[in-house]
Parts: sequence; C-alpha cells; structure tokens
Amino acid sequence: MAYELYYWDGIQGRGEFIRLALEEAGADYLDVARSSVGAQKMMAYLQGKQGYLDMPFAPPFLKDGDLVVSHLANILQYLGPKMNLVPDDERTRVFAHGVQLTISDFIAEVHDTHHPISTADYYEDQKPEAKARTTSFLKHRVPKFIGYFDRLIDCNPVKSGHVIGGSLSYVDLSLFQLAEGLTYAFPRAMVGFDRNYPHVATLRDQVRQRPRIASYLKSDRRLAFNESGIFRHYPELDQDPA
Amino acid sequence: MAYELYYWDGIQGRGEFIRLALEEAGADYLDVARSSVGAQKMMAYLQGKQGYLDMPFAPPFLKDGDLVVSHLANILQYLGPKMNLVPDDERTRVFAHGVQLTISDFIAEVHDTHHPISTADYYEDQKPEAKARTTSFLKHRVPKFIGYFDRLIDCNPVKSGHVIGGSLSYVDLSLFQLAEGLTYAFPRAMVGFDRNYPHVATLRDQVRQRPRIASYLKSDRRLAFNESGIFRHYPELDQDPA
Repeated sequence: MAYELYYWDGIQGRGEFIRLALEEAGADYLDVARSSVGAQKMMAYLQGKQGYLDMPFAPPFLKDGDLVVSHLANILQYLGPKMNLVPDDERTRVFAHGVQLTISDFIAEVHDTHHPISTADYYEDQKPEAKARTTSFLKHRVPKFIGYFDRLIDCNPVKSGHVIGGSLSYVDLSLFQLAEGLTYAFPRAMVGFDRNYPHVATLRDQVRQRPRIASYLKSDRRLAFNESGIFRHYPELDQDPA
Repeated sequence: MAYELYYWDGIQGRGEFIRLALEEAGADYLDVARSSVGAQKMMAYLQGKQGYLDMPFAPPFLKDGDLVVSHLANILQYLGPKMNLVPDDERTRVFAHGVQLTISDFIAEVHDTHHPISTADYYEDQKPEAKARTTSFLKHRVPKFIGYFDRLIDCNPVKSGHVIGGSLSYVDLSLFQLAEGLTYAFPRAMVGFDRNYPHVATLRDQVRQRPRIASYLKSDRRLAFNESGIFRHYPELDQDPA
C-alpha cells in the first residue's frame, strides 16, 4: 500500500524533506493534500475526526496503513530503516535522529527570519524586525548550524562525504534541501557558501545528481521555492556576506 | 551504571524535562555539568573531542554507557521504554514522540518571547520586539498549543487524565513543566489557565503530588525558575489575559 503524505499544497515547506526521502527511495506515495478533496481529508485529521492517536498538531504527517506519524524528524526516523536511508545499529540511528532534530530547529529559525514577531501577521507587518532577525541569523546562526553539519561530514571517520556512515542517509537529503533553500533565499549572503562549507556543498552537488533526485527535481511533483514557504527570497532581507 | 545528564548549570532549561523523567523513575543519574570539572567535560563533547558520534550540537545530551543521545525529545524517546514512561506498542510510541516534538517546538517559541531578534544579544536590547512577540504568543500560540494538549487528554479514550494511554508518561511530566513555567513567566496572563485548560491543570496538580516528584521539587537538585532560563518572569512582558 502506498504511503500517504499530508502537507499543505503550494509550498515545499517541511513536507519537502520527506518528499526527497520518498523520491530517493523510489517509494510508492501519494501527496494527498495536493487536491481539494485531499486537503479536506487532511483537515479531518487535524480536527481530530479520525480519532485520538490520529490527531497531529500540524502537517506534515505520514500515514502508513493504520499508523499516523507526525513531525518531520519522527517521519524520517520511521521511514529511514524501511527505505534503507539510515544504518542498522542503534548508536548510529540515535545519532542520525539527533542531527535531524538539529535540522528541524534550524528550519524553525529560517522561518522566523521573515516572521520574527508573529506567524498570525503578514511579513509586511514585521519588516524592520525581520531585517534585524535576518542580520543576526546570517551572522551567527548560519555559521553555527551549517558549520556544525560541515564538521560532521569532515569528522566522519569513513570519509564518505556523507553525514552518517558510508552511504546516503535521510540526513544528507535534508542538508541538500537546506543548502538549496539558503541559496534561494539569500543569494548574496550565500556567495561564499561553497568556500565556507565545502563538505556540505559537495554533498549538495552529489545529491542533486543522483538519478532519482535529478528526475524528481525536473518533474512537476517538485514545487518551486516561493514566498509562501519557509525559504523566502525577499531582496531587502538579503545582504553581502557577514 | 548511572546515566550521565549534560546540561548548562544554573538553569532548568531543556534539561529539566529530562530531570523530571529521571526523578519520577527513581533512576540513578549524574547531573554532570553542575560542577566546574563536569562543565569542562561537557565542553569536550561539544567540541568533538570525544569523537564523531559523540559530538552533539548542544546540551542537553545524555550518556548511557557508550551511547550519547542528544536532543530533548530524542532522549525522552530513548529513556521512556527503559523507565516505563511510555507504553510498549509502536503506534503509541510514535504518537508520544510526535507530541513530545510538539512540546519541543513550543519550548522554542517560549524562548523567543524574550529573544525574538537575536540570541546573541541581551533581552534588554530587544525589549519592544519581545513585548510584541509575547503579545502574539499569549494571544495565539498558548491557546493553540496548550489547547491541543488539553484536547488530547480529553480525547484519550481511556479517560485516564493522562495524555498517553492509561498511565503516566514522559509527555505528562513535560506538560507539568510547561504549565509551571508559563505560570511563573506570565502570572497575570495565566490567571485563567485552570479554567481554559482544565485537563492540563488537573494533570499538573497530580504530577506535582507524585511522591518522587514532590520530593524532587523540595530538594536542592531542583533549580528555581530564573531569568537566565527559558521561562523568564519579566513583569513588563506579562499582561492581562488575552
């Protein structure tokens, strides 16, 4: 039976990190909420109409048979072993999940660059604060997070160019999406990305060229980055490298 | 062998959610970084001196023998089954972890009420923005998150008063800490907490009275809430109920 992915239509958002894993694995899945009937079905879950264990706080969530898994990192932790996107041993899996949770934290910070005051208000209502938050984000947070991920690849004793062990994991796919998103949102500030984070940059290029990912990126299943998503390109928030 | 918990000294912070689980279980644990030698030991991990799989991005992290587990929700997911703080079946565990990740997201939003622009700057340098963010947080985010948790308890088919199944889980302990923290930080705004979120309030009171928790709260292992932690009481950010 196909996996059912539930996520807001029209944006890559957090759903994209799961799509990349499903696509790389060649998994059979349905992107449910990309039709109006599917969107209603998603709302029924959020409203608790499917029952107590099937009432996620927010998309994305994944349905696999009777099981509903909510939260990006939880979903990838669940799918990883089934799709051969994480090694077998507990120590490595626990580590991979910790790294993925760090990625989740970073995604929330990316979102807050354009919504530092309130998600209930428009970006246009919080532009000066967004500029201030973005300045700090580019100066402090990008180097701290992406520098950490770069160091993990560098320190990997297998020297595979991957974050986890000797082969591709869901963490690598998520790092690809972070690198692409940052460059979309802040093309000026990210001019030195490849020089500053050479291991992440190399990994990004390798992921982009994987046959299934390359084919996905060209398909209409891949939505374009846009200004309703997490990574938004507002030229006034971009700046020269810190 | 005792568990080793690593977290910043002097604050409850994210470490407190783990302490509560360890204390409730009567587990043998060491709060390592509450000595200067221990703090240095923690820094060695963060600097990667203990090796690649033992390089967390940030505290809290837990050491159990050779295994290093990083991130609040990852640690509770790991400890839960060992300490009988989550049911056995996969469906319930996956659900519990999803709820705990929702709690993690909320904790980050609590922190941003006093640091909406930059964690690299002092609260005093971002007070007007903190006021604006807090207003939106109290109006929109507290009802959305705490209302969701309240609804979960209400919808639990077992009607146990717990979030997960028929008995206490690590999720309940975390909700206790959220409820206590919100009331510490925003005593005026939380005046109606018990009326608005009756199930969470009842659960909070029951957790507070559990023998091991009651004894922990009176001990010097429990640090007081303070203005270096996540829940900070700044009277100027508090307000009448929304």
